[in-house]
Amino acid sequence: MSRYVTRAVQALAAYTPGEQPKAERIIKLNTNENPYPPSPAVGAALAAFDTARLRLYPDPLCAALRERIAAIHGCAAGQVFVGNGSDEILALCTRAFVEDDGAIGYFEPSYSLYPVLAEIRKAGKRPVALNEDFTWRMPPDYAASLFFLTNPNAPTSLLFEPDTVAAFCARFDGVVLIDEAYVDFARASCMELAPRPDNPNTLVMRTLSKSFSLAGLRLGYAIGPEPLIAALYKIKDSYNVDMLAQTAALAALNDLDHMRANVRRILETRARLADELTRRGWTVLDSQSNFLFARPPRDDAAALFEQLRRAGIYVRYFPGPRTGAYLRITIGTDDQVDALLAQLR
Amino acid sequence: MSRYVTRAVQALAAYTPGEQPKAERIIKLNTNENPYPPSPAVGAALAAFDTARLRLYPDPLCAALRERIAAIHGCAAGQVFVGNGSDEILALCTRAFVEDDGAIGYFEPSYSLYPVLAEIRKAGKRPVALNEDFTWRMPPDYAASLFFLTNPNAPTSLLFEPDTVAAFCARFDGVVLIDEAYVDFARASCMELAPRPDNPNTLVMRTLSKSFSLAGLRLGYAIGPEPLIAALYKIKDSYNVDMLAQTAALAALNDLDHMRANVRRILETRARLADELTRRGWTVLDSQSNFLFARPPRDDAAALFEQLRRAGIYVRYFPGPRTGAYLRITIGTDDQVDALLAQLR
Repeated sequence: MSRYVTRAVQALAAYTPGEQPKAERIIKLNTNENPYPPSPAVGAALAAFDTARLRLYPDPLCAALRERIAAIHGCAAGQVFVGNGSDEILALCTRAFVEDDGAIGYFEPSYSLYPVLAEIRKAGKRPVALNEDFTWRMPPDYAASLFFLTNPNAPTSLLFEPDTVAAFCARFDGVVLIDEAYVDFARASCMELAPRPDNPNTLVMRTLSKSFSLAGLRLGYAIGPEPLIAALYKIKDSYNVDMLAQTAALAALNDLDHMRANVRRILETRARLADELTRRGWTVLDSQSNFLFARPPRDDAAALFEQLRRAGIYVRYFPGPRTGAYLRITIGTDDQVDALLAQLR
Repeated sequence: MSRYVTRAVQALAAYTPGEQPKAERIIKLNTNENPYPPSPAVGAALAAFDTARLRLYPDPLCAALRERIAAIHGCAAGQVFVGNGSDEILALCTRAFVEDDGAIGYFEPSYSLYPVLAEIRKAGKRPVALNEDFTWRMPPDYAASLFFLTNPNAPTSLLFEPDTVAAFCARFDGVVLIDEAYVDFARASCMELAPRPDNPNTLVMRTLSKSFSLAGLRLGYAIGPEPLIAALYKIKDSYNVDMLAQTAALAALNDLDHMRANVRRILETRARLADELTRRGWTVLDSQSNFLFARPPRDDAAALFEQLRRAGIYVRYFPGPRTGAYLRITIGTDDQVDALLAQLR
C-alpha cells in the first residue's frame, strides 16, 4: 500500500461480492438473483430510447421515478430517495446520520457489507447477536447512531415481525434503515412505518435487484421522513442514477404484475425445494425471501458447497461458528432446482 | 432539519448542478454537454443487448472496460479505476487519500463541487487563488492531502501547461487528481504523468460526458499508480457501474473516430464563436475546452445572462468578484451558436 492512502483504508478488509462466473453452463444460485427475466416493458423502453439523448445529463433528482415510487407506496415524492443501487443508499446513510464519534449497529448474522461500511466511515461497530435460532434479540439498553436492519434477514431468510420492528424503531434513539430487499417474497412488510409522522427516524429501503429481476441495473430507493431524505440528497453524487437506469426502472415499476407473477413462480419453487430438503432430513428455516438457509443432516455444509461447486452448481457458504452449518441457496428455475436436488442425492 | 442528521450535513450548502430545463425549444449551452449524438455503435450495442441479462449483477470490476481503457492509454488494467461518473471518483478520493485532520486543495476559480466535497468529508479546505488572468499560481510552500486540479480548467477554459503540472506533482506531498474532463478539446494532456512509476501520487481522470457525448450514461475513469487505484476499489460501492453503462461505454470507447470527428466540429464552431465575439469587443479567453469563458465589452454579464435566458438561450453565470464579469458558453451546433450571436447583437 501507498503512504498516500489513509490508514483506515490501508487496514480495511474490503467486502467480497458473490462470485460472477463467466462460464455459461454454471447453475448460479449464489447471489440471490431472480431466475426469470424482467418485464418485457423494460426491453421495450430501452428499444424506444433515443440514444442521442445520452449526450445530455440525466435528471439529477429522478423526478419521474420518484413520482411513480411515491404513487406505489402512497407517500409524497419528497419522501423518496433514488440511489445507484441500495448499496449507495447504505453508504450515504453512514455519512448523513453518524457523527464522527457515532456507531453503526446491525444484527449478526446479517448482510456482511454492514461492518465494512462502518469501517469505511470509521464509525464504531455495535453488532447484536441474534438468538441461537436467528430470531430477534435486542438488549433493552441498546444504543447506536444508525441501525441497519435487513428484513427479511439475509442470509437467514427469516422475517422479523413488523410489530417487533415497530417497537424497536419507536424506542431507538437513532436512525433505523429497514432494508426490505427481499420483502416481495415475504408475508409482511414494514413499509407502513416509514412515511408516518410519528416515525421521524425510520427509513425503509427497496431494490429492483431481486423481485424485479434488475440486479444489473443498480436501482434502489428509500422511503422515509422528508428531513432524512433531504439529507441524503444533499450529499449524494450530483447525477447518481444514469438515464438508461432511470428509463428502465420506470418501465419495470409500471408493470408490477410481471414482477408479482415471477414472485409467485419463485414461491412455488421455494416451497417445493424446502419440502424436498426437509424430507431428506435438512433443517430448512422458514424462508420469507428468494433463497433458503438450510442445514444438511450430516452437518457437512462446507463439503457440500465444494462438491456442488465442482458440479457447476454455485450456492453461497458463510464460514463461521453459526452460519457455517448452513448453505444459502437462491431459488432458481424448477430445472435448476431439480439439478441441485439430483446432485445432492 | 432533523436531529438525526449530522451537524456537518445540516450545515452543508449542497452543490447545485446546472439547470436541466424540460422545455424542448431551449438552446442549452449551460452544462457543457456535447451538441452531437454519441457513436452509432452505442445505439447498436444497446439494441443488441439482451435485457434478460439484467437479472444478473454487473461485473463489479468492469473488467472489459478496464482492459479497453488500459489499451487506449498504454497502461495496465490494474492502473484503471472505472466510476459511476467522475463525480463518484472525486468523492472516493476524499475518503481514500485524506485523513480526518487532512485538507483538500483546489484552485479558485475551478469546479465548484470541490469545496462541497471537502465539507462532506469534513476535511480542511485549502483553496489557491489563481492569478488575476486565471493563469497558474501556486505558493512554493503549499501543502494539502489531496489536490483537485481541473485541466483544462473550468469555468476558465484555460489549459495549464503539462510541464507546470508535472513540476507541481513532483514536489507536492499528497495526491494530485488531474481532472481532464475537457482534454479532448485541448492541445495537450497530462495523461503521461499518471502511470509512471516516478509519480506515485498522480491520478489522471477522464469522463465520457463531454467528448464522447455520454453525459447521460455516468462513466468516468481514473488512471494512476496501482496502490492508489486499489484503494479506490476497496471503498467503492460493490456494483458501482451498471450493466447498460458498461455495455454502452465499451462501444463508445471502441469508436474513437466518431468522438474525434465530433470534437473537430466543435473546435471549428468554437473558433468561429470566439472570433465573432472578439470582433464585437468581448474578451474571450484562449479556450482549450468545449466552452468559452468570455467577458462582454460593457461588463454586463449578469444582465446578458438574464436576457439570454428570457430568449430561451441558457448559458452559465458564476456570480463573484472575478467570475461575475464573464459568461460560460458551451459550444453548441452552428445553428445554436448563430442563434446566440443573433440574440447578443
